[in-house]
Amino acid sequence: MALRYLTARLAQQIDEELMSATGAFSLDQLMELAGLACAQTLATVYSREQYPRVLVCCGPGNQGGDGLVAARHLGMCGYKPTIWMPKPGNKDIYQRLKTQCDNMKIPTIAPSQDTSSLRDALARSDVVLDAIFGFSFKPPVRAPFDSALPLIASSGLPIVSVDIPSGWDVEKGNAEGLGLNPDVLISLTAPKEGAKSFKGRHFLGGRFVTKALEEKYSLQLPEYPGFSQIVELPKVEEGQKL
Amino acid sequence: MALRYLTARLAQQIDEELMSATGAFSLDQLMELAGLACAQTLATVYSREQYPRVLVCCGPGNQGGDGLVAARHLGMCGYKPTIWMPKPGNKDIYQRLKTQCDNMKIPTIAPSQDTSSLRDALARSDVVLDAIFGFSFKPPVRAPFDSALPLIASSGLPIVSVDIPSGWDVEKGNAEGLGLNPDVLISLTAPKEGAKSFKGRHFLGGRFVTKALEEKYSLQLPEYPGFSQIVELPKVEEGQKL
Repeated sequence: MALRYLTARLAQQIDEELMSATGAFSLDQLMELAGLACAQTLATVYSREQYPRVLVCCGPGNQGGDGLVAARHLGMCGYKPTIWMPKPGNKDIYQRLKTQCDNMKIPTIAPSQDTSSLRDALARSDVVLDAIFGFSFKPPVRAPFDSALPLIASSGLPIVSVDIPSGWDVEKGNAEGLGLNPDVLISLTAPKEGAKSFKGRHFLGGRFVTKALEEKYSLQLPEYPGFSQIVELPKVEEGQKL
Repeated sequence: MALRYLTARLAQQIDEELMSATGAFSLDQLMELAGLACAQTLATVYSREQYPRVLVCCGPGNQGGDGLVAARHLGMCGYKPTIWMPKPGNKDIYQRLKTQCDNMKIPTIAPSQDTSSLRDALARSDVVLDAIFGFSFKPPVRAPFDSALPLIASSGLPIVSVDIPSGWDVEKGNAEGLGLNPDVLISLTAPKEGAKSFKGRHFLGGRFVTKALEEKYSLQLPEYPGFSQIVELPKVEEGQKL
């Protein structure tokens, strides 16, 4: 049995189940472990010696929260993260996570009317952590992200995307060609259908899925090595059916 | 400048500061990272191949919560944890953390009038994670822990203690000889004064202390290696002044 790729709806359902009275996880817990897995993935591929300056691009939803947690862990591990979060979500948790980053003196790019501040930040960065859109993304890409995605894409910087590359359809992938083309993808809980066509290095994180939940949804998750919060998935060969 | 050992009062103060509006951490976040560090410490010293059966002994306070998180992560990493938690705290978070363990089918020892169920569990275990008392412990040790500590001590099993070995005075250590004598200690945030006389393998966890906080309290924390949530402290030589 092969690893299962989730529809947007199923991803949503599993997320809700984890945080239900039955699953008993808090958003704080899941986001902490997810963000830690994102930071660990970036650190596995891009060393802090060669890629110290990480531009963490955060969207307005939970994905942006994962990004903030990752920025903090990257900072703790000696990277020099900078946050770009032009539309902070209004959940209390984002403000708390942002304050934690502020306390570490992680700079946040001041929002600007045009894309100049993002452009400047990209010029001063070594790698991008793309935590803009997650599995609840529905097109179209709205401002200011509509102009940001092409800027990030054309920066030439390596990109690590969280869960689904930003701009991709969660199920159909980058069929319309509007999304980022990351070098690395870190899927959370289980990969999404859209990630089937992803050709770069693909990691899985979210080591909080119980055996019971895995079996209920036939996720067929791979075994995580040792004490790691992430596991690298085998490379997809050209033409391989998933 | 040497690593600072904290008084009970200072440990309390730093904890409160982390969770204040200024520090912005939630208890869920700190407990998740603390419990992960505890599990990682145990896994570093006692392999799951040779020591699969971990008896996680949980007290009624936040220390017990760290134990529940550690039990879950140990279970995720292939250990066979069992929980002994005779006096669950009444905070909502303990119930949620306990449910997460239940969902993983981690067994909890049914409380018994005498110590027989604990005795049986010790006989079926390879190593003990002692998450009974933390830095807010004040003597005397009350029932059922008063009879449990000698049982655990005489079991002959290796013991990993969280923050301060249970039964030790947080500042004076095991001067009265009533506490456990663990093989391994995982101090959280910074070691406590009582741990100065600890002679076993000593780890530090809690990679959430900002530089600013570290400097404010002159903690002089060691550098954590790579992406690890723990760092081993140098061994204390006989007669060495701290």
